[in-house]
Amino acid sequence: MINAGEIKSKEPLLIEGFPGIGLVGNIASQQIIEELSMEYIGSMESRFFPPIAVLYDGLINMPVRIYESEEHNLIMVVSDIPISPSSSYDVSKVLINWAGSIGVKEVISIAGIATMSDEAKVFGAATTKDMLEKIENHVEIFQMGTISGISGSIMSECFIQEIPAISLLGATRSQNPDPRAAAAVINVLNDLYGYSIETESLIEQAERIELEMQKLAEDLRKSEQSASPRREFPMYG
Amino acid sequence: MINAGEIKSKEPLLIEGFPGIGLVGNIASQQIIEELSMEYIGSMESRFFPPIAVLYDGLINMPVRIYESEEHNLIMVVSDIPISPSSSYDVSKVLINWAGSIGVKEVISIAGIATMSDEAKVFGAATTKDMLEKIENHVEIFQMGTISGISGSIMSECFIQEIPAISLLGATRSQNPDPRAAAAVINVLNDLYGYSIETESLIEQAERIELEMQKLAEDLRKSEQSASPRREFPMYG
Amino acid sequence: MINAGEIKSKEPLLIEGFPGIGLVGNIASQQIIEELSMEYIGSMESRFFPPIAVLYDGLINMPVRIYESEEHNLIMVVSDIPISPSSSYDVSKVLINWAGSIGVKEVISIAGIATMSDEAKVFGAATTKDMLEKIENHVEIFQMGTISGISGSIMSECFIQEIPAISLLGATRSQNPDPRAAAAVINVLNDLYGYSIETESLIEQAERIELEMQKLAEDLRKSEQSASPRREFPMYG
Amino acid sequence: MINAGEIKSKEPLLIEGFPGIGLVGNIASQQIIEELSMEYIGSMESRFFPPIAVLYDGLINMPVRIYESEEHNLIMVVSDIPISPSSSYDVSKVLINWAGSIGVKEVISIAGIATMSDEAKVFGAATTKDMLEKIENHVEIFQMGTISGISGSIMSECFIQEIPAISLLGATRSQNPDPRAAAAVINVLNDLYGYSIETESLIEQAERIELEMQKLAEDLRKSEQSASPRREFPMYG
Amino acid sequence: MINAGEIKSKEPLLIEGFPGIGLVGNIASQQIIEELSMEYIGSMESRFFPPIAVLYDGLINMPVRIYESEEHNLIMVVSDIPISPSSSYDVSKVLINWAGSIGVKEVISIAGIATMSDEAKVFGAATTKDMLEKIENHVEIFQMGTISGISGSIMSECFIQEIPAISLLGATRSQNPDPRAAAAVINVLNDLYGYSIETESLIEQAERIELEMQKLAEDLRKSEQSASPRREFPMYG
Repeated sequence: MINAGEIKSKEPLLIEGFPGIGLVGNIASQQIIEELSMEYIGSMESRFFPPIAVLYDGLINMPVRIYESEEHNLIMVVSDIPISPSSSYDVSKVLINWAGSIGVKEVISIAGIATMSDEAKVFGAATTKDMLEKIENHVEIFQMGTISGISGSIMSECFIQEIPAISLLGATRSQNPDPRAAAAVINVLNDLYGYSIETESLIEQAERIELEMQKLAEDLRKSEQSASPRREFPMYG
Repeated sequence: MINAGEIKSKEPLLIEGFPGIGLVGNIASQQIIEELSMEYIGSMESRFFPPIAVLYDGLINMPVRIYESEEHNLIMVVSDIPISPSSSYDVSKVLINWAGSIGVKEVISIAGIATMSDEAKVFGAATTKDMLEKIENHVEIFQMGTISGISGSIMSECFIQEIPAISLLGATRSQNPDPRAAAAVINVLNDLYGYSIETESLIEQAERIELEMQKLAEDLRKSEQSASPRREFPMYG
Repeated sequence: MINAGEIKSKEPLLIEGFPGIGLVGNIASQQIIEELSMEYIGSMESRFFPPIAVLYDGLINMPVRIYESEEHNLIMVVSDIPISPSSSYDVSKVLINWAGSIGVKEVISIAGIATMSDEAKVFGAATTKDMLEKIENHVEIFQMGTISGISGSIMSECFIQEIPAISLLGATRSQNPDPRAAAAVINVLNDLYGYSIETESLIEQAERIELEMQKLAEDLRKSEQSASPRREFPMYG
Repeated sequence: MINAGEIKSKEPLLIEGFPGIGLVGNIASQQIIEELSMEYIGSMESRFFPPIAVLYDGLINMPVRIYESEEHNLIMVVSDIPISPSSSYDVSKVLINWAGSIGVKEVISIAGIATMSDEAKVFGAATTKDMLEKIENHVEIFQMGTISGISGSIMSECFIQEIPAISLLGATRSQNPDPRAAAAVINVLNDLYGYSIETESLIEQAERIELEMQKLAEDLRKSEQSASPRREFPMYG
Repeated sequence: MINAGEIKSKEPLLIEGFPGIGLVGNIASQQIIEELSMEYIGSMESRFFPPIAVLYDGLINMPVRIYESEEHNLIMVVSDIPISPSSSYDVSKVLINWAGSIGVKEVISIAGIATMSDEAKVFGAATTKDMLEKIENHVEIFQMGTISGISGSIMSECFIQEIPAISLLGATRSQNPDPRAAAAVINVLNDLYGYSIETESLIEQAERIELEMQKLAEDLRKSEQSASPRREFPMYG
């Protein structure tokens, strides 16, 4: 169920970011919302969501929130909770039905994609040839494969309801939060829509996380060297 | 389903306490009900509750009970049974819909929160800035994080239905019943609403529990010292 | 669903006995039905019951049966099948709704309760103070605790629908069928309602079961003495 | 759901055979259908049945089929698939509701029953005393016990809807298909209803199965004798 | 739910191919669609399908797609996702109801069947004698057995709705994709309906897969020879 009043934008762009691998979707969305000073306009709720209230500065927030920027003719849907595969169908129906009802012109779904390479690539796919042409110079086209989970459901639903949609998938190497991948996706959005959303703070955040990871790995390596070797059957020794 | 007749209070405060960590919610609620001599006015039931009748002095009680004090313009909802995550959504909808229907002005949700420190702190959060200001000198604001379970669902539901709500979370260190944390929450309520609910009996109860725990730990320590060391493979001895 | 025609009794007493610990509920109920020569008047069925037909003397019986004695103004509900916790709510709703519809004046729920002592005690609880006074000289009042399962659901439902109800819990020491506990409950009913239901046959049945258990225990003891000691790792011998 | 047109018989007998222990129900039913050259008139389907199409001579058949013999005033329901306990309630409701709607006079439920003895007994039970008298010289009355599964549900449903019903249970010693038990049940039907359904082919089939089982057992015995004894811990030898 | 506009064909043939053993159904269907240059006309969706969007050349596709060739009076339904047994009943109802509503004359269900032999056989079954005669010189009739899964449900549903249907089962030896079995099925279709769908590319694809499998097996054999023998209890050595 969507709890939101009337929107002010006309035929807006809708961008959604749910947490998945690397949390690329919600890190990017949260950054866009803050940088464009978007206004909170409502929330989505469902009996299929886990029972959680989210706190920022002591104030209760809904876990799936909707923001608007009339200036940028933009609606954002950002989620702090992952959507289970079994409720993806229903959640995407509700979301895209609502998108249709408020006259959304295009949908962009942000998510992560696991890759082996270190390069900060963004893969892209679309529901129509026009949309594919629009992105082909800004992303690496995701030629063949599948998009699963809530992002896949949303793309399918846009395809069915004939709302042009783009999938932007930030390449990420691990299960850890990846602000660098989120930044790469935002840069593509800056190019496509003429935004100037700052991404340096995300890069700094990424560097902090990477430094911590390195330190953790080094500590682990040291502690393993100093430890005596484990013996499987000590009582036979 | 709520089984309750008409209430006498006008725009009352509603306080709820479901059992969670430290049983802070229902210990505090039960104390308030007794100290303010509140009147039993009904119950909540659901096919999602476990099939249990609760006995006090040989009389059957419903596990989720509703009390009223017209004098204090107060409604209490207290539960002897925990609510499973999968039914939190429905239970909180039913409860807050009912709260709306009887004109409840504010909601307070009491629960426990696990901390490492020994200090008897109370953390607080709210659905509006006004409510947050009201509590900020009486609690430690719970800046960032999540409130999960029935208490999280109730806060979310109040947020959606725009009934101002406060979450009071009594810090507790263990899974054991913690009357001291319940007392700390009641002291905050005394400050906020001018009640003079006695909490000494809870402190005494806490001391009794702590003494028993200490004794148990000491007995355990002694019995371990006197016992011969366990041997993993005695037949090789 | 209740399949039963009109009843002849006016404001009857309804006694129910579902199988639980010691099978106290259905052993007592079956004895009452036979001793008072009650008439079969219908059955209860549900998709939640296991698919079972019960045979007596080659004739098909429903597993949950309803009997009436117009002479004693009494309705009995007896079950050969236990009710799962997840269907207790629905089964008790259906049963007590029906009880209300036929003008039942009081409900008695018979069940077992596990105790350590050998004494043939009956514990009692009630939904109202009047009912509690009625039983307090005939049973040991079950001061504090919970009644779970179908018996707990029925007591809660009577409480909600304001049909005065008594819970009679025959103390039993083991999981074995306990006709002695059933006899103790019947004696309480004889006292309360002036019945003269014979319980000697239950005592004899109990003695037979106990004798068999003793013999079994002795045989076990003997066979253990004569047997060579078990050795955990014979191949090391 | 029953997919069948109008039937030609008036107040027919309905015999059903679902697969259970020894496959007695469907082996007997299939033999009756073939020997009486019964006509296929429809099928039963349900979302609770496993997704299976059954092939005979390359032609698709429904797994639960209905046949009619106007000459013998007989309806047969035969199933190639077992019914799970959780769908027995619904399947028997649908089947016996349909039986009622076409004016079925009596129902016979064929199934197997596990026994220790080698004798080819048929046990019988009924929903009314009249039906029990009808069978008492032809079967061994199943005095006390339970009939579980779809056969139990069908008997209960007939009892509720007051359609006189007989349960014929062919005694069988193992989980293997038992055409001999099916033949014994058919002989009872021949006696009761004056049919002359041939059962020799079932006996021959039984002898073939038994011979194969004997041979298998002997081969197993031989191979065990010639084999060197297994040693549990060869590495300690 | 079927999302498709009006079709242009009159009383068309409908062929469906869902992925099962050897992926025979969807490999064959995909080849037919490409070779006959069929037009995409819609999709099937369901809350029971996994949440997946399928990509070809960067464009979003629905996982269950419908194509039409007016020239060949043919409708194809091809799926990239397997259908779980528990949703086969509903999916086949929706599909064959739609087939009935657009006036489909005949249905062909393509699937794989596991066999031991290396021969590229196609087994066939049908819902009517006419259809069986039509295929008997082109396939090996599947005399007796069961067709399970979505293909079995579709055949049953056609049988009930009296839409003549043929099952073509490409024999396959392993769980690996088997384009050779798909080619064999297409050759039968070419014979039956006078198509000239090319199958050489499938044979080449099969040879490539088989070569890779051989190489894999050889590599495995070599690596096992060179490796030192595994010892079960090295610490006793």
